[in-house]
Amino acid sequence: ADTWTVGGLTLSSRVLLGTSRYPSLQSLLDSVDASGTQLVTVGVRRIDLTESGGTSLLSALRQRHSAERPLHLLPNTAGCYTAREAVLTAQLAREALETDRVKLEVIGEDETLYPDAIELVKAAGELVADGFEVFAYCGDDPVTARRLADMGCAAVMPLGAPIGSGMGLTNPYALRILREILPDVPLVVDAGIGTASDAALAMELGYDGILLNTAVAGAERPPQMAAAMRHATLAGRLAHLAGRIPRRLYAEASTPEAGRIELRP
Amino acid sequence: ADTWTVGGLTLSSRVLLGTSRYPSLQSLLDSVDASGTQLVTVGVRRIDLTESGGTSLLSALRQRHSAERPLHLLPNTAGCYTAREAVLTAQLAREALETDRVKLEVIGEDETLYPDAIELVKAAGELVADGFEVFAYCGDDPVTARRLADMGCAAVMPLGAPIGSGMGLTNPYALRILREILPDVPLVVDAGIGTASDAALAMELGYDGILLNTAVAGAERPPQMAAAMRHATLAGRLAHLAGRIPRRLYAEASTPEAGRIELRP
Amino acid sequence: ADTWTVGGLTLSSRVLLGTSRYPSLQSLLDSVDASGTQLVTVGVRRIDLTESGGTSLLSALRQRHSAERPLHLLPNTAGCYTAREAVLTAQLAREALETDRVKLEVIGEDETLYPDAIELVKAAGELVADGFEVFAYCGDDPVTARRLADMGCAAVMPLGAPIGSGMGLTNPYALRILREILPDVPLVVDAGIGTASDAALAMELGYDGILLNTAVAGAERPPQMAAAMRHATLAGRLAHLAGRIPRRLYAEASTPEAGRIELRP
Amino acid sequence: ADTWTVGGLTLSSRVLLGTSRYPSLQSLLDSVDASGTQLVTVGVRRIDLTESGGTSLLSALRQRHSAERPLHLLPNTAGCYTAREAVLTAQLAREALETDRVKLEVIGEDETLYPDAIELVKAAGELVADGFEVFAYCGDDPVTARRLADMGCAAVMPLGAPIGSGMGLTNPYALRILREILPDVPLVVDAGIGTASDAALAMELGYDGILLNTAVAGAERPPQMAAAMRHATLAGRLAHLAGRIPRRLYAEASTPEAGRIELRP
Repeated sequence: ADTWTVGGLTLSSRVLLGTSRYPSLQSLLDSVDASGTQLVTVGVRRIDLTESGGTSLLSALRQRHSAERPLHLLPNTAGCYTAREAVLTAQLAREALETDRVKLEVIGEDETLYPDAIELVKAAGELVADGFEVFAYCGDDPVTARRLADMGCAAVMPLGAPIGSGMGLTNPYALRILREILPDVPLVVDAGIGTASDAALAMELGYDGILLNTAVAGAERPPQMAAAMRHATLAGRLAHLAGRIPRRLYAEASTPEAGRIELRP
Repeated sequence: ADTWTVGGLTLSSRVLLGTSRYPSLQSLLDSVDASGTQLVTVGVRRIDLTESGGTSLLSALRQRHSAERPLHLLPNTAGCYTAREAVLTAQLAREALETDRVKLEVIGEDETLYPDAIELVKAAGELVADGFEVFAYCGDDPVTARRLADMGCAAVMPLGAPIGSGMGLTNPYALRILREILPDVPLVVDAGIGTASDAALAMELGYDGILLNTAVAGAERPPQMAAAMRHATLAGRLAHLAGRIPRRLYAEASTPEAGRIELRP
Repeated sequence: ADTWTVGGLTLSSRVLLGTSRYPSLQSLLDSVDASGTQLVTVGVRRIDLTESGGTSLLSALRQRHSAERPLHLLPNTAGCYTAREAVLTAQLAREALETDRVKLEVIGEDETLYPDAIELVKAAGELVADGFEVFAYCGDDPVTARRLADMGCAAVMPLGAPIGSGMGLTNPYALRILREILPDVPLVVDAGIGTASDAALAMELGYDGILLNTAVAGAERPPQMAAAMRHATLAGRLAHLAGRIPRRLYAEASTPEAGRIELRP
Repeated sequence: ADTWTVGGLTLSSRVLLGTSRYPSLQSLLDSVDASGTQLVTVGVRRIDLTESGGTSLLSALRQRHSAERPLHLLPNTAGCYTAREAVLTAQLAREALETDRVKLEVIGEDETLYPDAIELVKAAGELVADGFEVFAYCGDDPVTARRLADMGCAAVMPLGAPIGSGMGLTNPYALRILREILPDVPLVVDAGIGTASDAALAMELGYDGILLNTAVAGAERPPQMAAAMRHATLAGRLAHLAGRIPRRLYAEASTPEAGRIELRP
């Protein structure tokens, strides 16, 4: 089977799913199921970690985990604006959720929610040194991406477009460069994906996974979009492996002339 | 279940698959299976219709047909350059394959294999009058497309790019216009698709199906690409139905500020 | 100097300008001047050809013509929906405007204003036989374009996008194919251009000219946009002739490493 | 006249031109003239600043400067990989060229020549504090760009694509975001431009200028491409000011139906 390994996990699904902003908890859980995801991000600053009801988000997600159908948690630092804030949030998450994995998000801009490269690198350095498996949400510039990879991040996760924009992969050239210069580190397109063809394209570029939230949670029918994303990642991954035909401005008949037989009279 | 009706058939698969140019008959058959297609085109001028061996293309395809898993034949007029030639080929196909369906292809240009709008319309008119279910391969201009629809063609099938080019949907705007002005006729993207994201995009534009040949037959591993296309059409169709989020240049946090709770000390 | 020949005229400007829909006659005339055009289209069905006042459109345009700064008229058949209607309009225009040139426009679709390939080819055949210099507004399909060129049209003028849409060159691949298969016939992008970079791109694709109307007439400041288009055609044409650098995903330093000298201590 | 102010200079030309990699000094000087540039960058590490011959690059450029046709020098730190190296190079340039202006380039990646955001910000801070007018070459992420602007850089200069790639504006969305969030700081597209339409597009996005080197120096005929770029910036700027028509998928006739008169019999 086609699996990939990231942060100590071996996964068959290539969808990472965010859990914020769904119309209801049921819609969220149905989307988790329909997407086939095995790794969901949870905003540590958003949820009440002391909450203990069986209907809470965390317990609902945990109940879905089983040996045959694993569902892992990936706490994130959404809402953090400085390295210090992000590191503290990650440490809090480690204790509360009992995992070394963290999706590191350090926002530098209120309007666009772009990551702050300087604070991000600083936080990533501290967290890697502290034993975390860091999934780093970053821009698409190759210098920052290579630095994060060299520091030992578990995954480098460039944006395709601003968070929640649904603009898709606005710069596939930049994403292609990242894949070329970082052939061995897990690369995940994080943010910007709006629909299925965006997800397929990310896979065709050779990315290892995609991380979605608004595209699913904000769709008119979230579970249906989640299912679309499951098929889209399978499609794009299979197409990547299948070896596509080259692009030509114009080509040749699909029914070759050589094979023509004459019309009988 | 999500089905569509075209030329008297009700189909659950949205992949129409061409059968020319595969590396081997086995590769072709494996691709047919992997794609999930229920409608395959066969070049009438290319195959020897009098051939009767159990290993021939036609008999192999026919053996795959069953009530639970239907596989219909769609003879095509590939290699025809005039209305007269295409009409004769269609009539020959009707007799030999015992079907009223025909994919009408009237090539007007040897280099680009673009359809000839004038000969195409002429042939379509004659064939519709003669009781055929005409699947018309055409350019992406709305005047010709509307004329074909008004004449009673079973499906209007604009190209995304030249046959065999793998360029994808070179003019999604033109394709979108066709869908808007022809909301009720079956529309299929025929020619140009190169990889999975192209197929997903066609579905997202609201097209009813895609017709593939070179993208699968010319891939390094045809059956794997066929499987990719199956998932891609499912993905794009589901995304179309799910109601995607709008595109915004930049948007809002996926973890809304309102939901932030303070870090505990 | 860089000139081109079309329909018996040798022109240094590559802007063909339409004259409908300006906020005022003065705005139109200022735009004509600012664009540097030497060939303006006039809608024969729109103007009153019997009108004789010195302020009329035709006389104002004619007064602008001089030996040093020629300004030729190109009557058009805008608003015609059939070959017969277009041929009659062209003949009327020939008598009224005393020119054999005609921009042939046969609309096939009220919503998109796409040309009707069948009626267009029919009208072009009759007009060429009748001694007209036919400037044919067509779609971007190579079969129709080649047919128009082979029939002896003075210029083949594919659309970049629907009339008045401002969408730019929605299918540069199709336009490139036309240039490749028709290296010798004057090719003009007609319709769709919205702004200066669209015009430059048309020239970079090797087109001989562009035809504009809405982009100028509908701009907030028409004469300023007309000036932009003059510079844009010069820019694109010069770039085409200058031989651009190839595109590479990433390349090399603009200051080569070999030339580095050491920093002095 | 349409001028802009940057780093204490008021300029009418919006082309900044690099001076490396031309086939000859004559070709370079002809390109400077043809481009109309008033600000040329000079690689300090590349040239021998102690050189004193009248034929040298610096003296040739200085001889071109006059009150009517100013030509200013902008030393750059191309080839620097750390903040320290860049700051030292800038200080050396200030002494040698007697100008406070510096194009700050701190490369972080040998393959792609992308800027290193962290070292760039560090160097910019030191140089601004030391009284320099800093023209900062950066990526297209809004956090770094805003930081450079807030620090007091004279110009923020995001790349359109990697240096020397000729890929054009690979992410116009990101460039548009920068213009929106930084309406008042001089913004210049630096790197990536390959041909005239790229330059026009940069102006249409509201950028204040473009910086070119390889696109001109590497063209088959550099002075001709330089002239193309002059026209392209004029074109794009005029179009930006003229107020373009909105884009519509399809629109309305350029000759409105209301104005139709009947064909006379």
